[in-house]
Amino acid sequence: MKHRLKEVQTKLMRGLLDLVVLQFLKAHPMHGYKIITSIRRNFGVYFGPSTIYPLLGELEDKGYLQSSWDLDAERPRKVYKLTNEGQSLLDCTESSLNHIHKKILTMGMNKPSLSDALRVNPLLSVKDSDDV
Amino acid sequence: MKHRLKEVQTKLMRGLLDLVVLQFLKAHPMHGYKIITSIRRNFGVYFGPSTIYPLLGELEDKGYLQSSWDLDAERPRKVYKLTNEGQSLLDCTESSLNHIHKKILTMGMNKPSLSDALRVNPLLSVKDSDDV
Repeated sequence: MKHRLKEVQTKLMRGLLDLVVLQFLKAHPMHGYKIITSIRRNFGVYFGPSTIYPLLGELEDKGYLQSSWDLDAERPRKVYKLTNEGQSLLDCTESSLNHIHKKILTMGMNKPSLSDALRVNPLLSVKDSDDV
Repeated sequence: MKHRLKEVQTKLMRGLLDLVVLQFLKAHPMHGYKIITSIRRNFGVYFGPSTIYPLLGELEDKGYLQSSWDLDAERPRKVYKLTNEGQSLLDCTESSLNHIHKKILTMGMNKPSLSDALRVNPLLSVKDSDDV
């Protein structure tokens, strides 16, 4: 059960990774490794360099991030910050997620009982007994 | 801009598709094509049979859905319903999404100004002027 929770979280997070990365970079410019550790610390799931670095590169290519070299660190590190275009993508993604999430929650309020479900589709109960 | 919104919605929805399908099937047993049209009607994005049918098969293989044939329709149709195991996956996924969404929103409240960001990482402004 605990294993499944981790699997579910990882799957959801994978789909929300762009949003999470943009959101982190809105708060502060960061280098890639810092993003990796921040995701782990905040969300309890691990995405490694092979996931995060290509994503940062892609977001930069599309103009949502801008990178620069931090030469004062022990070794040079690429630091990413959000562009205006990135900010506008973030706003758009956030409002889209809010909308989708609200929809999903509303769907969840509509919970007919099993007997309702069988009334809607009475064949289901017949099929069940076929299997026996 | 409108094109981008659609792209963002589709990408988010792709990551939330398991959840959405389970949520629909919690409300009513449905056949695959009905799920496709319900997603389009409710969320304004289209996922075709090549996405939805394999997903239904996978969820059934894992024991989250159970299918039966509806022979009363014009042609036989496979109807899916949620199993107890599927209900428990749905609960787990919903609470995980709530948690992640809350986290993302909280991160969003932490909005330092550009000058704060530069104070945290003063090199950024230097790098910016390097580019000029």
